[in-house]
Amino acid sequence: MNSKPQSDRRGRVTLVGAGPGDPELMTLKAVRTLASADVILFDNLVAPEILDFARREARTMLVGKSGHGPSCRQDDINALMVRLATSGKHVVRLKGGDPMVFGRAGEEISACRAAGIPVEVIPGVTAAQGAAARLCASLTHRDHARRLQYVTGHDRSGALPDLDWTSLADPFVTTVVYMPARTLAALAAKAIEAGLDPATPAVAVARATRPDEEVVVATMATLPALVADRSPPGPVLVMIGRAMAEAALDTHVSTNEKASARAAMTAAISAVQRAKAK
Amino acid sequence: MNSKPQSDRRGRVTLVGAGPGDPELMTLKAVRTLASADVILFDNLVAPEILDFARREARTMLVGKSGHGPSCRQDDINALMVRLATSGKHVVRLKGGDPMVFGRAGEEISACRAAGIPVEVIPGVTAAQGAAARLCASLTHRDHARRLQYVTGHDRSGALPDLDWTSLADPFVTTVVYMPARTLAALAAKAIEAGLDPATPAVAVARATRPDEEVVVATMATLPALVADRSPPGPVLVMIGRAMAEAALDTHVSTNEKASARAAMTAAISAVQRAKAK
Repeated sequence: MNSKPQSDRRGRVTLVGAGPGDPELMTLKAVRTLASADVILFDNLVAPEILDFARREARTMLVGKSGHGPSCRQDDINALMVRLATSGKHVVRLKGGDPMVFGRAGEEISACRAAGIPVEVIPGVTAAQGAAARLCASLTHRDHARRLQYVTGHDRSGALPDLDWTSLADPFVTTVVYMPARTLAALAAKAIEAGLDPATPAVAVARATRPDEEVVVATMATLPALVADRSPPGPVLVMIGRAMAEAALDTHVSTNEKASARAAMTAAISAVQRAKAK
Repeated sequence: MNSKPQSDRRGRVTLVGAGPGDPELMTLKAVRTLASADVILFDNLVAPEILDFARREARTMLVGKSGHGPSCRQDDINALMVRLATSGKHVVRLKGGDPMVFGRAGEEISACRAAGIPVEVIPGVTAAQGAAARLCASLTHRDHARRLQYVTGHDRSGALPDLDWTSLADPFVTTVVYMPARTLAALAAKAIEAGLDPATPAVAVARATRPDEEVVVATMATLPALVADRSPPGPVLVMIGRAMAEAALDTHVSTNEKASARAAMTAAISAVQRAKAK
């Protein structure tokens, strides 16, 4: 008797990136893995239709949003994940975007490793990549950007983190800020103080690639007030940099959606013009 | 008679991200789009199996690698793409990774817009995201990184570009360098000169997520010589930062591949130890 069969029956954890929102932006591997899971632990950042890829017999459990929750909550998720895998289940931890980009995968991988649970990761398209594609605005347009950076808009307590402001002020960077809804005005002020041109194009996208996507095209100086006015529900990301000037030139947005990004952009551009005229 | 039917018959261009290499890491939307293309213009960074998703009747054309080619070559690709779309074809421009992350999508989108050709973009998982998933090393581990940045390892002429070296020296950043094979030693020297700790973990990955993936785990000081020794064929990316220390702890790498990353990593770690012992 060898230990192989037993090892094959052992539980395991797969962290799966659900992509930016549109279920069609999931990878083939993510879909295949979801279809083989016994239990799926998901965030409320994951679009509901994505759970349709699960087997009928799979158990699905909402384990709260990524973002501002207290850290004990993450500990609870880790403990649940490990307990289920230890009992022999294939646990899928399903996360919006890519688990490895501001998705707390590090903590979940560590918990699995500490418990001796095999863990695997399936990457996903980030919300920023989804938004850039929709806007036809390259994140690294050769004429405008030689660096692309992702930062988070809040620390563990929900406050503005201590970012490397000089790196945000670089005129040749595209900066993607994750979920800055409550800290955007302070972030813009700090970046401008560090030398960022207030006229730098800045785009906010709520619920990127979802049918109810909302887009606001503005500048670093004008975006915070525009976003505060709308206070869009759901996750928001902000993309800052000269490369985002291309977003306003967008000539093609799929029209198969309820609210087209085009209309939202036109409205946003008008709003910026009205704000300027005041 | 309205213009709708004619407009539906018009040619168009879709820029499609092929993902990092493993065909299973393509998105559902990318696969569906490939299956509807009349012509596919692809780079040699795209894995051959990915073209199996094309229709049998589709024409596939290799249009050279992304990377070091002279810029007239890009103009030729733009002209070919526009000519085919103008003749009514659905042209798919298939690129490794994500077209919007160092994929020259900006130039191709501009060419389409200038010619009045409808253009759409389908994002893809980048090589760095694929590599991070394989290594179970989060790009933004909360204990190690508060910023993630992508830079390119060469400019239009193939030389080391003038990067924001201070932003690379930040101890709380993970830096992904695209295709630095020929410039890695100079890049490491500049980053260390700007203040980067030479002991910062650094990982090189060649042909990420492919069956013949090669991984070298080292430090910023030791990596350039190790990579030069191996001179791996195909695209190489380098990931630098404290978060990459987790890569060496990897407990799970799929064993369904010809050459496991685990073996490559073990060999690399031994090589680092031998280099240190000298």
